[in-house]
Amino acid sequence: VTTPGAPAPGVTAIEPPALPAGLDTPALVIDIGIVEANARRLGDQLRARGVALRPHTKTHKSVALARIQLAAGAAGITVGTLGEAEVMAAGGIDDIFVAYPVWAVGPKAARLAALHARTDLALSVGFDSVAGAERLAAAAGSSGRPVRVVLEIDPGNGRTGVAPARAGQFAGAARDLGLDVIGVFTHGGHAYRGADAIAGAAADEVSSLAVAADLLLAAGIEPQVVSAGSTPTALAAATGPVTEIRAGTYLLGDRIQVFLGASPPDGVAIAIAATVISTAVDGQVVIDAGAKTLTKDMPDYLIGFGSLPAYPDATIERVFDYHAVVRTPEGSRRPALGEVVTVIPNHCCVVVDLHDEFVATRAGEIVGRWPVDARGRSR
Amino acid sequence: VTTPGAPAPGVTAIEPPALPAGLDTPALVIDIGIVEANARRLGDQLRARGVALRPHTKTHKSVALARIQLAAGAAGITVGTLGEAEVMAAGGIDDIFVAYPVWAVGPKAARLAALHARTDLALSVGFDSVAGAERLAAAAGSSGRPVRVVLEIDPGNGRTGVAPARAGQFAGAARDLGLDVIGVFTHGGHAYRGADAIAGAAADEVSSLAVAADLLLAAGIEPQVVSAGSTPTALAAATGPVTEIRAGTYLLGDRIQVFLGASPPDGVAIAIAATVISTAVDGQVVIDAGAKTLTKDMPDYLIGFGSLPAYPDATIERVFDYHAVVRTPEGSRRPALGEVVTVIPNHCCVVVDLHDEFVATRAGEIVGRWPVDARGRSR
Repeated sequence: VTTPGAPAPGVTAIEPPALPAGLDTPALVIDIGIVEANARRLGDQLRARGVALRPHTKTHKSVALARIQLAAGAAGITVGTLGEAEVMAAGGIDDIFVAYPVWAVGPKAARLAALHARTDLALSVGFDSVAGAERLAAAAGSSGRPVRVVLEIDPGNGRTGVAPARAGQFAGAARDLGLDVIGVFTHGGHAYRGADAIAGAAADEVSSLAVAADLLLAAGIEPQVVSAGSTPTALAAATGPVTEIRAGTYLLGDRIQVFLGASPPDGVAIAIAATVISTAVDGQVVIDAGAKTLTKDMPDYLIGFGSLPAYPDATIERVFDYHAVVRTPEGSRRPALGEVVTVIPNHCCVVVDLHDEFVATRAGEIVGRWPVDARGRSR
Repeated sequence: VTTPGAPAPGVTAIEPPALPAGLDTPALVIDIGIVEANARRLGDQLRARGVALRPHTKTHKSVALARIQLAAGAAGITVGTLGEAEVMAAGGIDDIFVAYPVWAVGPKAARLAALHARTDLALSVGFDSVAGAERLAAAAGSSGRPVRVVLEIDPGNGRTGVAPARAGQFAGAARDLGLDVIGVFTHGGHAYRGADAIAGAAADEVSSLAVAADLLLAAGIEPQVVSAGSTPTALAAATGPVTEIRAGTYLLGDRIQVFLGASPPDGVAIAIAATVISTAVDGQVVIDAGAKTLTKDMPDYLIGFGSLPAYPDATIERVFDYHAVVRTPEGSRRPALGEVVTVIPNHCCVVVDLHDEFVATRAGEIVGRWPVDARGRSR
């Protein structure tokens, strides 16, 4: 499928996955052929650099898609919540890093203890405070094995993670609590500020991790895992002391990734099939994919809440729960009432989490309806 | 619970529902006592005006909460999708208006036909095009009964609905297709532009409906239903020819409704319980309710992706999938690492749709875990 016409403002032309006919809409469609190509591409690129890939599965929340990543050589998976870890472990995946400073008290402590008690599961968990580490240590309970932990380092993203210069202090404190400190990790989320921020964010990850890893060594702790993570920084951060990349969005692609240059225009595996349900108001059409299908995720460098590759002049201007208003400039081609259109979402991770299942396709042919196994597992 | 201190910029102080202790977070909490008070308040106010209330249940997607509305005198319910209608009908609710221009082809036509075939269900469906009406008429199939339809009128919201002056033409065409045209409806969504837009939007609904209802009469069609709908316009639009109000958000309340003056500060029944999971970066704390819990819904008149009533100077500045960065000004009180905080979401409808269940409470005591029955039923 080729995208005709010029791209909409701020959007590189995307070659979307082909839609099967006859879908009840709105529907989430994921092309497995494109998924496999994306899994292989980044896997091969990182293998050539001697760096492991531990994909973040919060993007797709699907055991089947995680298996495609493992089959393409991934070293294990990353998750963001214990709920995702529980689902992926139940699906038979045996090497899981919870890249999150889990605060393990009450029900969450019991859930972590249950996962930790599984001797068939290689589990590791993030931390960025001594108080958090104390609770992780307590969760090991009577297992006789320490919980494996990875210290989060802030590379300048300003979200979570300790300053690189303090890595030795925090890692040492965790070791002294009886935890098995296996390394350090960063999230280069500041790459999402725009395409010109990516190289700097990747360099920040590498230099922050280098400082932190050296300080672990100086504290007598071998940093087996030196892990950087984001799709935009995946290649540029796969260097120096870095042993592992935790990209997630690369598997499905989306409008943000193509805009940033982190997904190729033919690397978007995800689409929403939507129907034009109203043309009653002049100058626009209304489709049935609203905020409960596309979300309102819209970085300031993108125009609209998604794009219609077949109608590059159209803008998804407003979204209501079940409606999106698509503005079409005077004189431009517009979809007809009842037409099923392909919509590329801005941010795949939040969109997938709205759907219980997706239509799995290959080149427009349905190969199944696959569950979003960990949908809604946000804790 | 009283909110201490001054409200954050642009936010009226909200008196949030009390949280039970010991919740695994993030968790969606809904106080049933506040729900019941909200259901009674609007029900009583509309009853005093002689206008029916047909609440929009896309807000909560819960059969149990819909039953509270019906017990408080609601005349039936409104839904936005056939999926919601299927769930509510399966829950025993027998009077449902799908306030949406359903495009009934393929699987959707079959689903509509199945609902229409139920003689124990009073079902009506919106339309705003002749082509859409043709498909609704076809869906009646061999039932021997026409589908009951309501013509959507655009009151100046600019989303869906025909111009009021064309109501007679569209209603007549639908009748000639064999449909049972029972009235007209509007959505005064332009009330959400800000508090000073509400009175005008309500007046637009009333005047548009009056014109449309007269044109139906002139075409020989009795407008039994003259239905206006939005929480901000609910009271002001309950006048003149209007027979029915379709408010939804009034039941749960949220930050937008309080800002607009459409919910009282003690009328917010919904809260997210979240835990402070990181304080590693200066000047902020990070909680575990991110974009997959709160959404990124943020109208331009609100600051932040939700509010923390106990910390009125705090701003939820950035959200990631499972993190929210809460900025706390120098010198202000801030929540401690591990503290469970109450977060009021900006827009309740999209937040509820992310959760499979909610913690039902009364004054901070858990009374159950209730399912969000129609979660994810966006088609």
